[in-house]
Amino acid sequence: MSSSSVPLFHTLISARHNVHVGSFHLTSRDAAPACPMPWSVRLTPLRGGRQQGVDLLELAAGDMSIRLVPTRGMGILDVTCGDLRLGWDSPVKEVVHPAFIDLGGRGGTAWLEGFNEYMVRCGLEWFGPPGPEEHHLATAEPPANPLTLHGKIANIPASELWIEVETKKPFRLRVHGKVYEVMQYGPKFELATTLTVTPGEARFTMEDRITNLAGQEQEFGLLYHINHGPPLLEPGSRFVGPVKNVTPRDEESKRGLAKYAQYGPPRAGSLEQAFFLELHGDRRGQTRVMLHNKAGDRGVALGWSLKALPCLTIWKGLHAKEDGYVTGLEPATGYPNPRPAERQAGRVPTLKPGQT
Amino acid sequence: MSSSSVPLFHTLISARHNVHVGSFHLTSRDAAPACPMPWSVRLTPLRGGRQQGVDLLELAAGDMSIRLVPTRGMGILDVTCGDLRLGWDSPVKEVVHPAFIDLGGRGGTAWLEGFNEYMVRCGLEWFGPPGPEEHHLATAEPPANPLTLHGKIANIPASELWIEVETKKPFRLRVHGKVYEVMQYGPKFELATTLTVTPGEARFTMEDRITNLAGQEQEFGLLYHINHGPPLLEPGSRFVGPVKNVTPRDEESKRGLAKYAQYGPPRAGSLEQAFFLELHGDRRGQTRVMLHNKAGDRGVALGWSLKALPCLTIWKGLHAKEDGYVTGLEPATGYPNPRPAERQAGRVPTLKPGQT
Amino acid sequence: MSSSSVPLFHTLISARHNVHVGSFHLTSRDAAPACPMPWSVRLTPLRGGRQQGVDLLELAAGDMSIRLVPTRGMGILDVTCGDLRLGWDSPVKEVVHPAFIDLGGRGGTAWLEGFNEYMVRCGLEWFGPPGPEEHHLATAEPPANPLTLHGKIANIPASELWIEVETKKPFRLRVHGKVYEVMQYGPKFELATTLTVTPGEARFTMEDRITNLAGQEQEFGLLYHINHGPPLLEPGSRFVGPVKNVTPRDEESKRGLAKYAQYGPPRAGSLEQAFFLELHGDRRGQTRVMLHNKAGDRGVALGWSLKALPCLTIWKGLHAKEDGYVTGLEPATGYPNPRPAERQAGRVPTLKPGQT
Repeated sequence: MSSSSVPLFHTLISARHNVHVGSFHLTSRDAAPACPMPWSVRLTPLRGGRQQGVDLLELAAGDMSIRLVPTRGMGILDVTCGDLRLGWDSPVKEVVHPAFIDLGGRGGTAWLEGFNEYMVRCGLEWFGPPGPEEHHLATAEPPANPLTLHGKIANIPASELWIEVETKKPFRLRVHGKVYEVMQYGPKFELATTLTVTPGEARFTMEDRITNLAGQEQEFGLLYHINHGPPLLEPGSRFVGPVKNVTPRDEESKRGLAKYAQYGPPRAGSLEQAFFLELHGDRRGQTRVMLHNKAGDRGVALGWSLKALPCLTIWKGLHAKEDGYVTGLEPATGYPNPRPAERQAGRVPTLKPGQT
Repeated sequence: MSSSSVPLFHTLISARHNVHVGSFHLTSRDAAPACPMPWSVRLTPLRGGRQQGVDLLELAAGDMSIRLVPTRGMGILDVTCGDLRLGWDSPVKEVVHPAFIDLGGRGGTAWLEGFNEYMVRCGLEWFGPPGPEEHHLATAEPPANPLTLHGKIANIPASELWIEVETKKPFRLRVHGKVYEVMQYGPKFELATTLTVTPGEARFTMEDRITNLAGQEQEFGLLYHINHGPPLLEPGSRFVGPVKNVTPRDEESKRGLAKYAQYGPPRAGSLEQAFFLELHGDRRGQTRVMLHNKAGDRGVALGWSLKALPCLTIWKGLHAKEDGYVTGLEPATGYPNPRPAERQAGRVPTLKPGQT
Repeated sequence: MSSSSVPLFHTLISARHNVHVGSFHLTSRDAAPACPMPWSVRLTPLRGGRQQGVDLLELAAGDMSIRLVPTRGMGILDVTCGDLRLGWDSPVKEVVHPAFIDLGGRGGTAWLEGFNEYMVRCGLEWFGPPGPEEHHLATAEPPANPLTLHGKIANIPASELWIEVETKKPFRLRVHGKVYEVMQYGPKFELATTLTVTPGEARFTMEDRITNLAGQEQEFGLLYHINHGPPLLEPGSRFVGPVKNVTPRDEESKRGLAKYAQYGPPRAGSLEQAFFLELHGDRRGQTRVMLHNKAGDRGVALGWSLKALPCLTIWKGLHAKEDGYVTGLEPATGYPNPRPAERQAGRVPTLKPGQT
């Protein structure tokens, strides 16, 4: 009996087929016994407080563990690699269910009531600060549409979630998800995301495809809000990257411009700073940046295509530990300015009907 | 042993008695074995994406099948009659749970994030476009209350849901529901709805009763947003009715006035049009309109009382198929104008305390 | 075998440990067999309408029964003592799940869509009417943050819920809960509440502790909205208390100033009145007020510390029975005015980091 070369698929959630498996647990012992590096996948329903009803998906392979949140737009809660944790200590301790968040609340900033992920997508219709915007209704008199902080995608539960298991070398594990941001007289986006892990490697890749399901061209925006706290973030930590130029977002950021790539200690009451970067890429348009600790012996590297995500924002929230001591490295299609300004700067891309 | 003449009742949901049966399945074989035309009733919990937690109730009798959504104010998702489907292809594919919709979002148009029913009620406190309105607070200084698109009733889950089975001729099946739109210093409405099917007949009736539970007179509004897509809607389809007069809603609609009763093909980027109609009724105040396809060999007829619903709006959304190619026939207590304008026109009726 | 002096603990909900027991039932017979006065604790999931998913916790001891709502910020739905019920008949009959309420809706008054408790907390970041307020974002340009009626805490489910049982005299029963109102760039409050009942006594105590989890000083506000309807409220009922002075809230309240401590009959269409009181306390700062019926043979007494809650508001909503015939006695840190006015009056207290 030979092990099949066809990967195994397990459907965990499917709105299309009215499936939600509830809990789920699969190990390499059962699914890929030939795999020398043990792995496991576990779907757990969360309970209590504002996390009641949230699904958490945990992939563990070797000494790396990744926790995904299908209920919050397929964000990554955190990544643990040996004793290194990628993530941050948000004041929000629970994984908050979208039903408890009214994105329009708090002047359009209620998105922050659920914000605690290592990686959270901002978009897909827009990202950036709350503010006014003409809404593209198919009527002669469009009403004002107040944009809310960082858009909606992080507060939409995945409609489809399945895993893919290779039973032969390199024994890759994949998590696939689909999230829909759709309405009549509004956006019609499908986000199809695949996270791939090769057991034994201390890295993962994430591939997202956005499809415009509409019959018309549609503006979109996507920002990956990737947030680091201790231990990678500490006084003396540094950002390293092939920087072409740096623009501070505002007056407060100007004050920190000279030291934008260095990190100071937590400081209660300090204001956030943000820097807009252009980066150099290689011949294929790939770039790579790094955040490392003071000693320079631990770090994380992020690589992506500048063709898809030409802009990088560094967000420095060096607040008191209790208020969130954090820095975001945020590759995106644009910068988190008000959308009308981004549009004027030519940084609001569009997708044609059916285009991906 | 004689079959009883007393109908059977099955409670599926009752907030009053703290009941929710979860899943439910009943067939004529078990409940009305004497019925020559087999029928079934099935309550299914939906799963995945934004439909997690929604209940779907399906009635099948002969070759007709009706899908109701108790969780969304007892709307009708679609009706299938042989190979004819009544409904439309909204960009919203899931049956969206109200918890995921903040009606005030998107400038008060977030109602559209869940809009995909064949028949959805708009009301009960108001319907029509979003906009400002003085709120009837029992205080000296009422704050502004921004009205949201088409009101709240479609996003309130039914508090009571039960079915009624006749075990003797004509073996009628009834679905009863109650939905409450209530708050202190606000509306206090009970919607009691009954859908009746006689197995073997290709028709159904829906009877709604609205009761003002308040101690004061209360304005209300009710519009039945009945939406048709293909196959009934196609280039060459026609609306037919005893029309007294037609008023276009806006400039864009004026352009389509001459052909308001005819339907063209889907057109990407086209604007919606709306026409406000007065209809003739018979001596009892009953009226009837029809939508039929190009060949005129398939159609749907809607009949209602002009005393209760004197106004009809035709909504033409002849957008690209992907954006919703649809027409709504919308009998109502008024027209979907801003409520202050409707009030001035005398089209906002009131209910006295306890009045139905 | 001697009964232990160590109290027993039962965890019912814990977000920290991912626990939700679902249903729960415990009686003195099982847990404290030596207790001469039988008691029971029951956790029940509510079903149907807008109460789907709400947990109700009922404590019964002797002839007193208290119903708590962990899902709505640990409010008290009602208290029954023999044939006396503390509570009121709100137009809202269901115990509404927070997911169905968008607090920003209805001009910021949608809090009323779920308002039906005997005791509901208002706060913790603010309480009072909806209105504009500068938001304390850690940015140079804070957006406007529209405050919503009575704040958020009543619409946040408890993250932790456990009961504590004394197995020896005095056999006290305690319910502990924790509710978190937290976000980055916003409040970071922990509400830890303990309700204590001694079986056989017709009284209960509630002790709340608010901790500022932030790294910065933080304004807060807490108002206990304690609402009485029939039978305690009837024409001729009276408020009694050690009143220092009374200020009517507005013109309508001025009209009722002379009779602020007396209650008239329900009157359809009447406006609410509110009175702001200062009270005398004893040497330890404790005060006590009472509401009794016309005959003066039945009443409720409320006692609290003026150091923590120096302000008392009497709210008179003598509306038609169907609209809520109710009076609120509302001890608080301030009065329910717009927060900027309260701040100017020095009635918005603050908590230092870690302060309780």
